[in-house]
Amino acid sequence: MVNHRSVNPLSDDCFDLDEDTLHEECGVFGITGHPEAATITALGLHALQHRGQEATGIVSFDGVRFHSERHLGLVGDNFSDPQVMARLAGSSAIGHVRYATTGETMLRNVQPLFAELSGGGFAVAHNGNLTNGLTLRRELVNQGAICQSTSDTEVILHLVARSRQIRFVDRFIDALKQLEGAYSFVGLTNKKLVGARDPLGIRPLVLGQLDGHYILASETCALDIIGAQFIRDIENGEVVVIDENGIESIKPFGQRPARPCIFEYIYFSRPDSIVHGRSVYDVRKKMGAQLAIEAPAEADVVVPVPDSGVPAAIGYARTCDIPYELGIIRNHYVGRTFIQPTQSVRELGVRMKHSANRGAVEGKSIVLVDDSIVRGTTSKKIVQMMRDAGAREVHFRIASPPIAHPDYYGIDTPESDKLLAASHTVEEMRQIIGADSLAFLSVDGIYRACGYQGRNPVTPQFSDHCFTGDYPTPLTDIEGETPRRAALLAEAG
Amino acid sequence: MVNHRSVNPLSDDCFDLDEDTLHEECGVFGITGHPEAATITALGLHALQHRGQEATGIVSFDGVRFHSERHLGLVGDNFSDPQVMARLAGSSAIGHVRYATTGETMLRNVQPLFAELSGGGFAVAHNGNLTNGLTLRRELVNQGAICQSTSDTEVILHLVARSRQIRFVDRFIDALKQLEGAYSFVGLTNKKLVGARDPLGIRPLVLGQLDGHYILASETCALDIIGAQFIRDIENGEVVVIDENGIESIKPFGQRPARPCIFEYIYFSRPDSIVHGRSVYDVRKKMGAQLAIEAPAEADVVVPVPDSGVPAAIGYARTCDIPYELGIIRNHYVGRTFIQPTQSVRELGVRMKHSANRGAVEGKSIVLVDDSIVRGTTSKKIVQMMRDAGAREVHFRIASPPIAHPDYYGIDTPESDKLLAASHTVEEMRQIIGADSLAFLSVDGIYRACGYQGRNPVTPQFSDHCFTGDYPTPLTDIEGETPRRAALLAEAG
Amino acid sequence: MVNHRSVNPLSDDCFDLDEDTLHEECGVFGITGHPEAATITALGLHALQHRGQEATGIVSFDGVRFHSERHLGLVGDNFSDPQVMARLAGSSAIGHVRYATTGETMLRNVQPLFAELSGGGFAVAHNGNLTNGLTLRRELVNQGAICQSTSDTEVILHLVARSRQIRFVDRFIDALKQLEGAYSFVGLTNKKLVGARDPLGIRPLVLGQLDGHYILASETCALDIIGAQFIRDIENGEVVVIDENGIESIKPFGQRPARPCIFEYIYFSRPDSIVHGRSVYDVRKKMGAQLAIEAPAEADVVVPVPDSGVPAAIGYARTCDIPYELGIIRNHYVGRTFIQPTQSVRELGVRMKHSANRGAVEGKSIVLVDDSIVRGTTSKKIVQMMRDAGAREVHFRIASPPIAHPDYYGIDTPESDKLLAASHTVEEMRQIIGADSLAFLSVDGIYRACGYQGRNPVTPQFSDHCFTGDYPTPLTDIEGETPRRAALLAEAG
Amino acid sequence: MVNHRSVNPLSDDCFDLDEDTLHEECGVFGITGHPEAATITALGLHALQHRGQEATGIVSFDGVRFHSERHLGLVGDNFSDPQVMARLAGSSAIGHVRYATTGETMLRNVQPLFAELSGGGFAVAHNGNLTNGLTLRRELVNQGAICQSTSDTEVILHLVARSRQIRFVDRFIDALKQLEGAYSFVGLTNKKLVGARDPLGIRPLVLGQLDGHYILASETCALDIIGAQFIRDIENGEVVVIDENGIESIKPFGQRPARPCIFEYIYFSRPDSIVHGRSVYDVRKKMGAQLAIEAPAEADVVVPVPDSGVPAAIGYARTCDIPYELGIIRNHYVGRTFIQPTQSVRELGVRMKHSANRGAVEGKSIVLVDDSIVRGTTSKKIVQMMRDAGAREVHFRIASPPIAHPDYYGIDTPESDKLLAASHTVEEMRQIIGADSLAFLSVDGIYRACGYQGRNPVTPQFSDHCFTGDYPTPLTDIEGETPRRAALLAEAG
Repeated sequence: MVNHRSVNPLSDDCFDLDEDTLHEECGVFGITGHPEAATITALGLHALQHRGQEATGIVSFDGVRFHSERHLGLVGDNFSDPQVMARLAGSSAIGHVRYATTGETMLRNVQPLFAELSGGGFAVAHNGNLTNGLTLRRELVNQGAICQSTSDTEVILHLVARSRQIRFVDRFIDALKQLEGAYSFVGLTNKKLVGARDPLGIRPLVLGQLDGHYILASETCALDIIGAQFIRDIENGEVVVIDENGIESIKPFGQRPARPCIFEYIYFSRPDSIVHGRSVYDVRKKMGAQLAIEAPAEADVVVPVPDSGVPAAIGYARTCDIPYELGIIRNHYVGRTFIQPTQSVRELGVRMKHSANRGAVEGKSIVLVDDSIVRGTTSKKIVQMMRDAGAREVHFRIASPPIAHPDYYGIDTPESDKLLAASHTVEEMRQIIGADSLAFLSVDGIYRACGYQGRNPVTPQFSDHCFTGDYPTPLTDIEGETPRRAALLAEAG
Repeated sequence: MVNHRSVNPLSDDCFDLDEDTLHEECGVFGITGHPEAATITALGLHALQHRGQEATGIVSFDGVRFHSERHLGLVGDNFSDPQVMARLAGSSAIGHVRYATTGETMLRNVQPLFAELSGGGFAVAHNGNLTNGLTLRRELVNQGAICQSTSDTEVILHLVARSRQIRFVDRFIDALKQLEGAYSFVGLTNKKLVGARDPLGIRPLVLGQLDGHYILASETCALDIIGAQFIRDIENGEVVVIDENGIESIKPFGQRPARPCIFEYIYFSRPDSIVHGRSVYDVRKKMGAQLAIEAPAEADVVVPVPDSGVPAAIGYARTCDIPYELGIIRNHYVGRTFIQPTQSVRELGVRMKHSANRGAVEGKSIVLVDDSIVRGTTSKKIVQMMRDAGAREVHFRIASPPIAHPDYYGIDTPESDKLLAASHTVEEMRQIIGADSLAFLSVDGIYRACGYQGRNPVTPQFSDHCFTGDYPTPLTDIEGETPRRAALLAEAG
Repeated sequence: MVNHRSVNPLSDDCFDLDEDTLHEECGVFGITGHPEAATITALGLHALQHRGQEATGIVSFDGVRFHSERHLGLVGDNFSDPQVMARLAGSSAIGHVRYATTGETMLRNVQPLFAELSGGGFAVAHNGNLTNGLTLRRELVNQGAICQSTSDTEVILHLVARSRQIRFVDRFIDALKQLEGAYSFVGLTNKKLVGARDPLGIRPLVLGQLDGHYILASETCALDIIGAQFIRDIENGEVVVIDENGIESIKPFGQRPARPCIFEYIYFSRPDSIVHGRSVYDVRKKMGAQLAIEAPAEADVVVPVPDSGVPAAIGYARTCDIPYELGIIRNHYVGRTFIQPTQSVRELGVRMKHSANRGAVEGKSIVLVDDSIVRGTTSKKIVQMMRDAGAREVHFRIASPPIAHPDYYGIDTPESDKLLAASHTVEEMRQIIGADSLAFLSVDGIYRACGYQGRNPVTPQFSDHCFTGDYPTPLTDIEGETPRRAALLAEAG
Repeated sequence: MVNHRSVNPLSDDCFDLDEDTLHEECGVFGITGHPEAATITALGLHALQHRGQEATGIVSFDGVRFHSERHLGLVGDNFSDPQVMARLAGSSAIGHVRYATTGETMLRNVQPLFAELSGGGFAVAHNGNLTNGLTLRRELVNQGAICQSTSDTEVILHLVARSRQIRFVDRFIDALKQLEGAYSFVGLTNKKLVGARDPLGIRPLVLGQLDGHYILASETCALDIIGAQFIRDIENGEVVVIDENGIESIKPFGQRPARPCIFEYIYFSRPDSIVHGRSVYDVRKKMGAQLAIEAPAEADVVVPVPDSGVPAAIGYARTCDIPYELGIIRNHYVGRTFIQPTQSVRELGVRMKHSANRGAVEGKSIVLVDDSIVRGTTSKKIVQMMRDAGAREVHFRIASPPIAHPDYYGIDTPESDKLLAASHTVEEMRQIIGADSLAFLSVDGIYRACGYQGRNPVTPQFSDHCFTGDYPTPLTDIEGETPRRAALLAEAG
């Protein structure tokens, strides 16, 4: 059984600025010891909704039994019914949001996953992607294991189930040691809340506290929504085990330098989150400011591509001292489905989600600021929309370097041949999107925006493989196996 | 049968910045002669969705029969099904969006309304509110008329049906002459598309053209979405009759100065619309700039209250030369329903739709810029949210004057005793909302932002009764009838 | 706007024994003075569900306001939600079930209808059909009335609204006197529950009592479900006005002999109802017994066509002393929608709702007993199904006379050219349906089954026009107006 | 995670004759080689719907991939959408209906289950219950297997996955040999359709053919609906392997006498099915006839308890020569949900699904005939309903022996202390249900109705443990483990 990616209902002509962006696979949350554990988890997941809008689940434990609710759709739509919440009894809960796929088959993939192990139940939710997940799965099936989902997360369940260790935490670490790639796990047993981050800390995970009860979450904004206190980031390669007696930290992989994913700053994390001690909003403004230094433009106004380009545009405008103007207006009332124009209407160039603010751009030379270019399809349309609204010149500025390499760590990048920067020079890209000028932030520029002198070529401070091709872990599943890449992507779900 | 206003599911503690705002009742759209009339209308209504999110309807005419689809909910959710659109056959259509109420009973109120008259069918959609609607309705019922809805719009149907004139347009004008208050009508007969604007032009209506086919719409943004051309505003007191032979303009009320509602600039119209020749976005920026002149603040940053305060904040920040920062972040993924925190969780101060961007406000003196204060309940919470996020000082600036009087022309204002400015001085208001300082734009200030020297006290250029108490029409239904006001409001729906 | 009849989703090949039957338009119910009026009404409507399955509504009055819930679908599906029932507050309520049509437009036709008259609100529900409804509607529209629905019931609302009488009951009778055709009304004002039956008593209406509170209902089975006591039939031409002081009976049309519709015995009423003093089940058995006398058959078994042919088959089998056997089995789990076989599968002769019980019919000569033949399409298929299951001979016996004339009083008969008996002899019909023999009960036979010597040709005891062509009232809408018949049927909805 | 049985929404007072009956767990269907495999399977499942109404699923194989659709609800509601059917591509399919439980968790239990084994995919659907299922599951979990569902069916998947045999069929037989209890399996691999029946043939399974393509189904009625030909019963202990080359029969357990479950004749199978060469309808009539011989009654009429008591009542009435009458009428329009009467209304004795036909029972001595008594709660109410309708005497006759022992083979019987016959004499039962007399068919009587002289005490011809306590297999899971019985029942789901 094979996943089918959900088709974006927006036609090319009814374009959506969110259409040609990167997609994160997941956000995770967990809490233990709180009488309203499931409600707290639902609120935390709501704050993490930007990390995945297509499916969500919560598993709670009431001291005797585990309870599970896993659904397609938004957190608010699925966890606002008091009857649903009443079914999620207990003072411990973990939850998950994901960018996922539709259909009955796929509900099996909605996390947290759960298994009854010989020592009791174990639920787990995962943000990230294993680079040896298919290899491990193949070995497991050959040994007689039955895989119900197509997600990496099930592999960890099987590895824990088959471990010969006695204590749960030893079995969990036994399993982690067989994994390659990126992972931030939150797990729940009948005694403990556990968390784990991969040896390089590629995907984020933070520790918080609410009324003395520990919380694990993908971002600090999930703490803020419930008024919880931020304690610290979980470290790369750290396993934490939490129960009523407190928190135990284990470092099964020893001490290694972290390489968190730079895209959390560029695109994924919410602007009000604090990631590794830095305000995401502030880093984005600094990327815009750095971009203004590296690639200034002579123009009348700076226009952000909403919403992800806004902080960088503020930084760019302020550094260049060019007025910041809302040249593109977003329609917030898009509903669940989209009006389907007929072909003849489509040719009118209908724009369902965004429109040009003619009053702000007509007759002007504008600088459009966006966070990144993936396929370039949207960029082309937005330049045209600005020209249709009367912009005299359109200078495109991107507050990150060209994305020339796919990600294998949980970000849904298109294949290489769809990445505009993989096969085109900046000048070619400029011609394709139709801008008067185009410039990207340099790789060193993003490091500067984060407070470094530049990228440390020996031990880079971030995972930046999408820009540099420097993958921080082995890629067991795909190395030398190009023909199998399509299958890989299809099943990575 | 009496309407029940829909209850906002958000508790006070899970606050919503959109909660304490003004609500417009309607947006209207009509087109004739286009083979895709219903689809064009659906797109136009989608662009007008900000004028009413709770119900929507389209009536089309196929040369023989009228077809109607009226539903609760968003345009996109109701008019994206090809089967629904296929039922709306024909080359003429009119449509409506409204801020309305829920329940079976209320579906009767969803517009356009339709009646089979002796000369054929007539469908009509209405933006505005009559100030003699109840009086007319009472007279009609006494004469044996049956009113199925509780909306003003039905009154016009009855008056047309009972007119002794022969030609439809004469019957329509006969009916208009009996009305007081604010109205922008679009109507559809088996021969014509008609439009009408009240003698003062209180509510907006514009004329556009697509491939030679005329369009009527509440705002120019409904023309932009389909690439239609803006022709001109329908004038105050103008009736237009459109068919395949062209457009006929009739002025049954003679020439009088217009007094359009100032709130279209302040709050209702979309920033990318052009209202009476002015860019709404530009007027709002100028209101912010004028406010900065009238009520400057010494502060570190200017923070808009999203989304309605954004243009004014840009204008204010630029005039004061204080950095503009996104101190409040909006969560776009709120879903259809809301997570219901238990009381104990609610006390944590959960914020479902907005959150403070601590990195932008902590330790700073901030100027919060919003478009208006209605009850003040949200303002109080937002000031507290900024203080919780570490703001050192909070200066509140409102880009319009205090709202001290209710509207009776289609804006859903609370009763006087709920309007904070109706019974409090600015200093009292400042104390209630907890700001370090509070200032409003002056009445003359809004006129200046619109390009005038100030308000003309003899013939004011706008309807500004909410600020001044100067109602531009008789208020037949309520004058001297204070005790009946509650009933009035309940039925005005 | 024109109704579209709902399309039966069953294809010809996946046949449904209920497909080719007559359809009644309505059932009505009303109660006053009971604290649980709406719940009682919902239960009563549930017992009347066989009279109409496509839409249902209840209007209640709580002493101050009327409340309305009108929906498409079954009673149980619409009135099982406690929130819906809580909205129907008050101690008086009336309700309605109908065989109706689908779509938004048609919700306007779901009864009870309601109007705010000058003296207060008036809700009314109607079973029957007016033979001058279109004529009255045309006159009303010419006088400036607005008709929102396409139902006859709205005409009565307008006539009451326009009456110059003072007291409500006088206005109601004033209106009734203008009507021709069949009607059983239940109505609710802010003071009274009213009922009325047309001068000939064509459609049924009974009076009951529960704990001292009066009830009006189409059939006694609606009294039985709530343990209410049956008092008496409302008489032909009787108007009853019920309030806390008791019941007042008015006979505005004087005393005339009744002519109730014979089809209530043959098909419409539930077998456990008592209609005009006779058990419906008992009359049906007697029709079967009379049929056995008039048209005996030499056969091995008697097989009922389920479910409507069952009592007559029992009567037939007993009189002939031939074993009664269930030769056709009904599948009760049909769900809301039907599996759509592809053409190739359809050719297998799939039967979704019924199947032959081969063990009971194989190798046997059988007598199939049904209540009536309308188009004959189903009869043909059922004969074939019996032959496919191995029946040696199939003798078809119909417990009513041939239906050769359409009904205009609330029964949805097809047009004449679709009525098999309108243009075929019995022998031709036998050949078409493929039976070895075919016989119908005589007209006098149905009168004998009801206890009479036969039909009284001077003053017939029943309305039997479908068999005899003897219409008991003028047919104003259609007389001499053959070309308008299609429009008439379309709008009679 | 533990199943929660769905709560019957009908209160005791709004009683349902189907409420206190036995529930079968499943029906299965499979076909291979037919271009419309999924549609054929949906139709077959629709005919088997009486075996389970709460969930249904189909898995198809298109030559490359397996496709799965599993849903809560009826077959017709889930498999009528052409888009759903289009997703079930391929010429092989298996399907399942079950009596199951509600909620997200439980969707995991909806069959067919599927696993990707090392040799390819394997889907399986199961009717029956293993008596060593929990024991096997415990062993599997201890070996590191992960169980996603709580159904027995998953155990077979794990056993096949872990078998060391090479060929699929050897692995399947390897697994079957570890099972105890009752099972009829249909399974689908990427090459074959397989079927298996337990060594005693407790649950049914038949072989049919449509246009040369083999079919497996629980009952012959699933062949009749699509016009397929019945070939033979699958034998007890037989494994069949079907592909394009034909059918292979394997007898891994040698030849043993069969002991099919007698309840297929008494209650479960549809009357038009042929089970082991006997017409179910005919056996039921003979049970009624035998009952009339063993326990005659002097009465005026014989009344069946609908629908399951109908054939036995026909047999009883004919043998006693007492008129058969429909004394109880069923309301077919119950909808999805039920009207919830308030307590005060409930006390009226509301009957939503059935009503007494007073005209048939008033003043009479009646014989009520039903198929079985489980708890006796419904029997008590039905006797009272008959007395309320005026029955002078009520003689209750049951066409099967007293049920004194629970089933462990797939029938959902209540625990012993809820089975009325487990702890009461017939006279005590008579007093509890309030009948004037009560009699059951003898154990030998049911064998006689099936054509035997009586029960063979050495090698009984049927599994009749519910009557005799003679369980035909070991009961490994529960023997000597009384305290764990509750857990067992909860998980047997």
